[in-house]
Amino acid sequence: MDERTIFFLSDQTGVTAETMGHSLVTQFNRQNFRQVTLPFIDTEDKAREAVIRINEAAKNHTLRPIIFSTLVQDDFRSIVREADGLHLDIFDAFLEPLSEELQEQPTHEPGRAHGMSDIDAYMKRIEATNFALANDDGGISRNYEMADVILVGVSRSGKTPTCLYLALQYGVYAANYPLTDEEFESGTLPDILVNQKRKLYGLSIAPDRLRQIRKERRPLGRYSSAQQVRYELRESDKIFRRYGIPNVDTTEFSIEEIASRILDSTGVERRVRP
Amino acid sequence: MDERTIFFLSDQTGVTAETMGHSLVTQFNRQNFRQVTLPFIDTEDKAREAVIRINEAAKNHTLRPIIFSTLVQDDFRSIVREADGLHLDIFDAFLEPLSEELQEQPTHEPGRAHGMSDIDAYMKRIEATNFALANDDGGISRNYEMADVILVGVSRSGKTPTCLYLALQYGVYAANYPLTDEEFESGTLPDILVNQKRKLYGLSIAPDRLRQIRKERRPLGRYSSAQQVRYELRESDKIFRRYGIPNVDTTEFSIEEIASRILDSTGVERRVRP
Repeated sequence: MDERTIFFLSDQTGVTAETMGHSLVTQFNRQNFRQVTLPFIDTEDKAREAVIRINEAAKNHTLRPIIFSTLVQDDFRSIVREADGLHLDIFDAFLEPLSEELQEQPTHEPGRAHGMSDIDAYMKRIEATNFALANDDGGISRNYEMADVILVGVSRSGKTPTCLYLALQYGVYAANYPLTDEEFESGTLPDILVNQKRKLYGLSIAPDRLRQIRKERRPLGRYSSAQQVRYELRESDKIFRRYGIPNVDTTEFSIEEIASRILDSTGVERRVRP
Repeated sequence: MDERTIFFLSDQTGVTAETMGHSLVTQFNRQNFRQVTLPFIDTEDKAREAVIRINEAAKNHTLRPIIFSTLVQDDFRSIVREADGLHLDIFDAFLEPLSEELQEQPTHEPGRAHGMSDIDAYMKRIEATNFALANDDGGISRNYEMADVILVGVSRSGKTPTCLYLALQYGVYAANYPLTDEEFESGTLPDILVNQKRKLYGLSIAPDRLRQIRKERRPLGRYSSAQQVRYELRESDKIFRRYGIPNVDTTEFSIEEIASRILDSTGVERRVRP
């Protein structure tokens, strides 16, 4: 199938152009895309370089490139605009109606979108990350009084990456505690968790998926056997029901989705906004 | 100042609506915004509930709400559209030109944008996160042959959150190694790092900023003293120059920006796309 190049252009990291672009292109299945991100376009030279790269892609393929861009400065935008392709730019589309509504002229200053001007937000994210690391996997700290949420689930159900994502993205204090034989055999949770019951949130996962993930780590042995995986998930489900712990099945979800669903269903407030 | 409510509406996590919205509203300084995210609008009831919340905000404030939305399904979009406010939707703005260019009809299926359909990407991100955790702070693993990049810098220069972000967001294998008295006194790096010299990347930071960050952890003592902080940064800078290690000053940057700049300047390929 003919290949088409998608460019994500930005005077910053490119994260906005990428997330917007992905939301749109995933609406189309019958395409063969190559993706190129060109971040930090903050000089005229870099803007011209981007044009050269886009035009090269246009020349080497029968299909026109698509350009998702978030360039704040008019001069760079007008240079990039000359490149051969379909241009989709959120500032082109939305800045004018927004400016009219707000009755204020845009600053056209780059670098505010993900800017670090906000030291406070940076610190909060770092502190939350340190909290997640110290309270990972039932770790030594067990500072559960400070936690906003405590994730519980079997090994490899997604607890650690979800906690780290909650910390980095939202500044949320997320601890996690692994359910193991100790809990399965007694059918109960330790007091330190029961005392924080309203903060508990369970992660469940389909047995086949869990096996697949565990096999990456240890291909052989009990840990990734069908029997063991089914046993652990059955027992952890019993514990969720026994204590009335809300939970989400992570099988079909990305880390972002798991994190968002936890915030949405617990009502935990994010401490920072991206 | 009069408050205006910004709504981020999504049938998924809301991340796309939020990043787009933030890029736009940070262009305006003279506003007082309250931000509300309404994710997972995937039923008619939820769409109607969103309309009620938006209309309440419209009634309680003199300023009209602004609604950034990424709703893929036409029926939900047409319900939400009735809410009182300025509507800015990337699907409204871009889906038609994109569909024309690609000569394909959009699927209008939600949930693909951040969908977990891609197990492979999920695994890569998890594996990269585990790698970052095992190789954090010069940790026991020291699997530097496997690393894509090894961050070096003084304590609290931002190494750990940057490594975790690189792992979670891009699936990049990022290790980090702290520069301490051992390195400062000898002026050299250990062989295990010198052997991987082309993977090294330095984080520097302004002394005042570093003091501020360290004081959060330990308000008193040598660790956060002006003298010690200046000494460590001077010595780490010498090491960067001695070994020709590229580096970035993180003082003004967010974690996203530091991560993007590292990828941009090292040419390290991301293993997954968001």
